Amino acid sequence: MKNILLTLMILVSTGTFLFAQRPSVVSPEVHSDNSVTFRYSARNAKSVTLHTEILPEPAEMTKDDSGVWSITIPSVEPDIYPYSFVVDGIEVNDPNNTYLFANEGFKRSLVDIKGDKPLVHSLQNVPHGKVSYRSYTTAQDRTGTLLIYTPPGFDANGETEYPVLYLIHGGSDTEETWTKVGRANLIADNLIAQGKAKPMIIVMPYANTGLMFSDAFGNDMMNNIIPFIESNYPVLTDRENRAITGFSVGGGATLNIGLMNLDKFAYVCAYAPYVQTPEFRSNFGDWSPDVEAYNNQLKKLSIYVGESDQYIGIVNSAIELFNEKGLDLETMFVPGGHTWMNCKLFLATTLPQLFE
Amino acid sequence: MKNILLTLMILVSTGTFLFAQRPSVVSPEVHSDNSVTFRYSARNAKSVTLHTEILPEPAEMTKDDSGVWSITIPSVEPDIYPYSFVVDGIEVNDPNNTYLFANEGFKRSLVDIKGDKPLVHSLQNVPHGKVSYRSYTTAQDRTGTLLIYTPPGFDANGETEYPVLYLIHGGSDTEETWTKVGRANLIADNLIAQGKAKPMIIVMPYANTGLMFSDAFGNDMMNNIIPFIESNYPVLTDRENRAITGFSVGGGATLNIGLMNLDKFAYVCAYAPYVQTPEFRSNFGDWSPDVEAYNNQLKKLSIYVGESDQYIGIVNSAIELFNEKGLDLETMFVPGGHTWMNCKLFLATTLPQLFE
Repeated sequence: MKNILLTLMILVSTGTFLFAQRPSVVSPEVHSDNSVTFRYSARNAKSVTLHTEILPEPAEMTKDDSGVWSITIPSVEPDIYPYSFVVDGIEVNDPNNTYLFANEGFKRSLVDIKGDKPLVHSLQNVPHGKVSYRSYTTAQDRTGTLLIYTPPGFDANGETEYPVLYLIHGGSDTEETWTKVGRANLIADNLIAQGKAKPMIIVMPYANTGLMFSDAFGNDMMNNIIPFIESNYPVLTDRENRAITGFSVGGGATLNIGLMNLDKFAYVCAYAPYVQTPEFRSNFGDWSPDVEAYNNQLKKLSIYVGESDQYIGIVNSAIELFNEKGLDLETMFVPGGHTWMNCKLFLATTLPQLFE
Repeated sequence: MKNILLTLMILVSTGTFLFAQRPSVVSPEVHSDNSVTFRYSARNAKSVTLHTEILPEPAEMTKDDSGVWSITIPSVEPDIYPYSFVVDGIEVNDPNNTYLFANEGFKRSLVDIKGDKPLVHSLQNVPHGKVSYRSYTTAQDRTGTLLIYTPPGFDANGETEYPVLYLIHGGSDTEETWTKVGRANLIADNLIAQGKAKPMIIVMPYANTGLMFSDAFGNDMMNNIIPFIESNYPVLTDRENRAITGFSVGGGATLNIGLMNLDKFAYVCAYAPYVQTPEFRSNFGDWSPDVEAYNNQLKKLSIYVGESDQYIGIVNSAIELFNEKGLDLETMFVPGGHTWMNCKLFLATTLPQLFE
């Protein structure tokens, strides 16, 4: 073992391609008391600020004699937080951290404050499902991509048929955001292991933000994605075994798709839904629902949001709309903003309610 | 449609969280003549250089009046290339590009020069296999992760049993590097569609670089990974239907694992194998193989390498060793270095040779 370590040290110190170049600094450094130090090396920069969802405001970093800017945030609540540096006005992610937010627009780094107790999104010693990356054919005859979580013990040709949750990401996110940032697979693993959630299949499509503003994504869901799942997986196909959930623009899409297809979905759960879209106005502007049918047939209609979400006004307008119509709507308001920390909490709250 | 576009434009211009913040600059910009422009915004930097595997040397970038550094490289051969910027001596990836090299050590950006003809790694309109992210239990009773490619038409409980390729990444890479950088799944899709490669299962484990220097990874392969695959997938379990291939440190592991387990593997294909490891010395330092048995039983033993690979001397020492012993060894020398451009070429060369 000593030989191995010595070899490793020599290789590292000579900086071969086999190993990473030595990082210029260590960042982020999570300390045992859940404080965390962020560092960024930029000798000539005039200003480096930390933008993080830990703190409500950007924080100035200070430079030492070697040109390394740093800041330490004390006692952070264990969770996974996005952050970035703004260097002389330009946002960059952390060049010393390979854990990144899966997103097509911004490219922020993530810091995982694990704490000393396992969280609902932590990798725990329980049976694990698997996540499959699959292709399907979209309406435009293009190749669409989606991720599919199948639970522990899943057997594609076994006798068990599973209920299905369709889980939609937010604006400019990708099909990987619900697993890589939202840890949907680990949350499901943990809740299933505890007997709190039913074994289910979770489908995470890629939904271009622009498409989510029109009926294009909903049409793709109904005409391509759901048929793909139902012809390739052993799934229950009655409405009481089909749920839809999504965040932000994907939360708006959830309300559009779920409530416009009552014959298909019994569970419609929107997280901080962004509803100022042409599609939402078209569906709900002059909506005269058969309220009794909705209330009888929906096993769950919920809207969850953070109290300091920047879209709280928009979310409240949706809540008011559904309350005015007389729909049985569950709402939950929690601290925090339009964040994936809250997304994980929302999903962990929803999963035990599905397919009861 | 006009309304939607207008809404999108308004939202983008007001910079909501729903959409990415407007990037400070566009980078990389691939032009129709396959030239590519890289840009980096850093008003106060004294020097910004482009490090890319397109050019043999780092290239100075020049700053315009608005503080944007840029460089254009003419007529690039279509491929996927890693690159980074070095800003006043500090390596950073491209903050305006979300396509990143999957690696635990460095964090480089990737530029995909698609060209006007589909390449063997391009997404083409052919049947697609799927890539599954799975967990298994390692010898240390920890949760190991691996990716599994199953070919188009795969049926977990069908009558078809598949041959298996174990495909090992390089130093500090992750289990995602062979798909996200090496496009192994698309290469397999395309070659299977053309009838050039047999439908096969491809297993891509995560192998910590340090473990690959000792027998720890080989033991994990033999005791945990292969049994996991063979108890969970419909696979052929005779040696003629099992292959191992890997790059760099993973190429060294390929030679160690493949040649020390002749009863398990009929195909052993190493790409730019890094063999200056304790494990390789232990296995091959005083090796007295039954050469006839090896030559009769190995359907393929190959070593491929780029002529300008920085480890060409080490690779040649392995080639000489096996030639001296009298093993039937196929070698291929191609232009280029220790790169994933070559990894894709090597894999596309190997797949048609397997399981004939």
